Amino acid sequence: MDIASLETPVPVVDLGIAEANMRRMQAYADAHGLALRPHIKTHKLPGLARRQVELGAKGITCQKLGEAEVMADAGLDDIFISYPIVGEAKAERLAALAARVKMRVNADSSAGIATIARAARHGHEIGVVIEFDSGNKRSGVMTVDEAVALAKEAAATPGLRFDGLMTYPTSAASAAFLAEALPRLEAEGLNPVVLSGGGSPKALQTHELAPVNELRVGTYIYNDRNMVGAGAATWDDCALTVHVTVISRPEEGRAIIDAGSKTFTSDLTAEGAAGGYGYILEYPEARIDRISEEHGMVDLSACTRKPQIGERLRVIPNHVCPVSNLHDRIATTRDGEFLGFVDVAARGRTL
Amino acid sequence: MDIASLETPVPVVDLGIAEANMRRMQAYADAHGLALRPHIKTHKLPGLARRQVELGAKGITCQKLGEAEVMADAGLDDIFISYPIVGEAKAERLAALAARVKMRVNADSSAGIATIARAARHGHEIGVVIEFDSGNKRSGVMTVDEAVALAKEAAATPGLRFDGLMTYPTSAASAAFLAEALPRLEAEGLNPVVLSGGGSPKALQTHELAPVNELRVGTYIYNDRNMVGAGAATWDDCALTVHVTVISRPEEGRAIIDAGSKTFTSDLTAEGAAGGYGYILEYPEARIDRISEEHGMVDLSACTRKPQIGERLRVIPNHVCPVSNLHDRIATTRDGEFLGFVDVAARGRTL
Repeated sequence: MDIASLETPVPVVDLGIAEANMRRMQAYADAHGLALRPHIKTHKLPGLARRQVELGAKGITCQKLGEAEVMADAGLDDIFISYPIVGEAKAERLAALAARVKMRVNADSSAGIATIARAARHGHEIGVVIEFDSGNKRSGVMTVDEAVALAKEAAATPGLRFDGLMTYPTSAASAAFLAEALPRLEAEGLNPVVLSGGGSPKALQTHELAPVNELRVGTYIYNDRNMVGAGAATWDDCALTVHVTVISRPEEGRAIIDAGSKTFTSDLTAEGAAGGYGYILEYPEARIDRISEEHGMVDLSACTRKPQIGERLRVIPNHVCPVSNLHDRIATTRDGEFLGFVDVAARGRTL
Repeated sequence: MDIASLETPVPVVDLGIAEANMRRMQAYADAHGLALRPHIKTHKLPGLARRQVELGAKGITCQKLGEAEVMADAGLDDIFISYPIVGEAKAERLAALAARVKMRVNADSSAGIATIARAARHGHEIGVVIEFDSGNKRSGVMTVDEAVALAKEAAATPGLRFDGLMTYPTSAASAAFLAEALPRLEAEGLNPVVLSGGGSPKALQTHELAPVNELRVGTYIYNDRNMVGAGAATWDDCALTVHVTVISRPEEGRAIIDAGSKTFTSDLTAEGAAGGYGYILEYPEARIDRISEEHGMVDLSACTRKPQIGERLRVIPNHVCPVSNLHDRIATTRDGEFLGFVDVAARGRTL
């Protein structure tokens, strides 16, 4: 079967490009003494997670227990859940995971530590990493006092192992926080073995940003329009393209493609709505300026050459991670040859 | 099992509210002599599609062949694909559908008609409805001349039946187009049996907007924040809520919920980014002002009472249709009682 005969819309991953992206990040981590712990949220594929580990990654990162369960089923045996886990049902699932693989979990509250402690009562030690804020204002404690208090609480809780600190993304604010927190932890007799930072756009500047020793990155394996916009990748580094078909040409200056928010998501770039919903490789001047669930409205007014109905186009999405989450399977290629479909095994694991 | 013990995030559909919404729209369609042909894109559930037909709907509407295949498998036997179908592989699938259920398909180009004709060559007649634009600038021909030419082409093509015209959404522009197109079609000896309009927000004004005789609506069965914003529903008419849990409270004025774009999508309301990403029933003054894939950042600064970590909240999403598409299953309730999970059978059918 030929790639050009696959029905569209279909996400296509060039495994050669993905391999080069994995190797580049691993080489960077190795050169700077960082433990690479890739976030599987981007690909959600056990096969690529295993490849990341083969190339030198020290375990993987997941956001949800459901993702970790899929990865543990596939043989990944060192998993960090970089996301607060709260509640009894989740504690039971975490306990089941800790019984079979090495688990480390984020906490930014006493309630989070209590959930992990409940899981650890089943007899398997679980590592705890306290999340602090680096200006992102998502989860993570805002003060060194809170971080130290939670670290002490984790260290004092039976079954838990205080592993260290994490933040997202790594930034100058991370360095400032660590400069204050590390002596405070030392004074308490606490040893933060893990100082975990993350974020693909500035991953290759990590060593200049903050003294972390672990790198959590996801998007780098595929790259996307946001990564190119941030100067962190080129179009040639983008491993995932969505192949689409022009299904309507209602006006001279407009084409409709068979892919909208159900294929690309509605995520925008830093440009906002003006940036549109994806980059069409064959028509760089075209702009996917509006989408509905299944339609992409393409403004062709800046294009001298214009696509016809039935023509296939390749689109680099704005944000590639949630694109993986929308598709049951992806097509894989190497050197332009279709290798087959791969199920996106951890797709939809929001629990 | 109790609803409050289900792990979050989980979409929960109140079947009593959905039933009332279905009955209200059916009563409107009946009162105005409109054939109701619900769009299954919102629920993607064969069970609710069957219920819509039991209550009086004249067949269903799907956007993609993959959705139609799921619905045909479930016994739905009169399906309109209101979306341009282009290409050989899709023609084969359409032929297989036409062999087992009554099929009608949108076309807005000769290439679209050619695809349907190719499908019909397998021996089963397929109805063709020509799509025209009513100001939405999505798919659909822009001129009456084109509509008449395509209608003639469909009528003259072996195996095809010219069924009529469709547009989205129904508007004053639809009326103007029909006023010009209908005499032209009559002059050509063409009889547009179907004049199909659509769109939930103005569905109950259809009879005042344009002389269509078929109503395609999807969102009305669940309703959402956009429908409430348009004055077309109240919060009490919203059948689908997403149950979430507060997992972090990093600051006095901020809570983090365990649901982001992987649960709600990034779709905004008419307010744009200022409108946030959902409406929290328990805290109407709160605002989900930012999201990432798994985090919802909630601004609590306007709330006098504030939620604690572990507290469960119910969120009405901005746009409910793509929420169905993100979840493998939904929980169903009636009068507050948990009835069970239902697989979202037509989820992810982008092909």
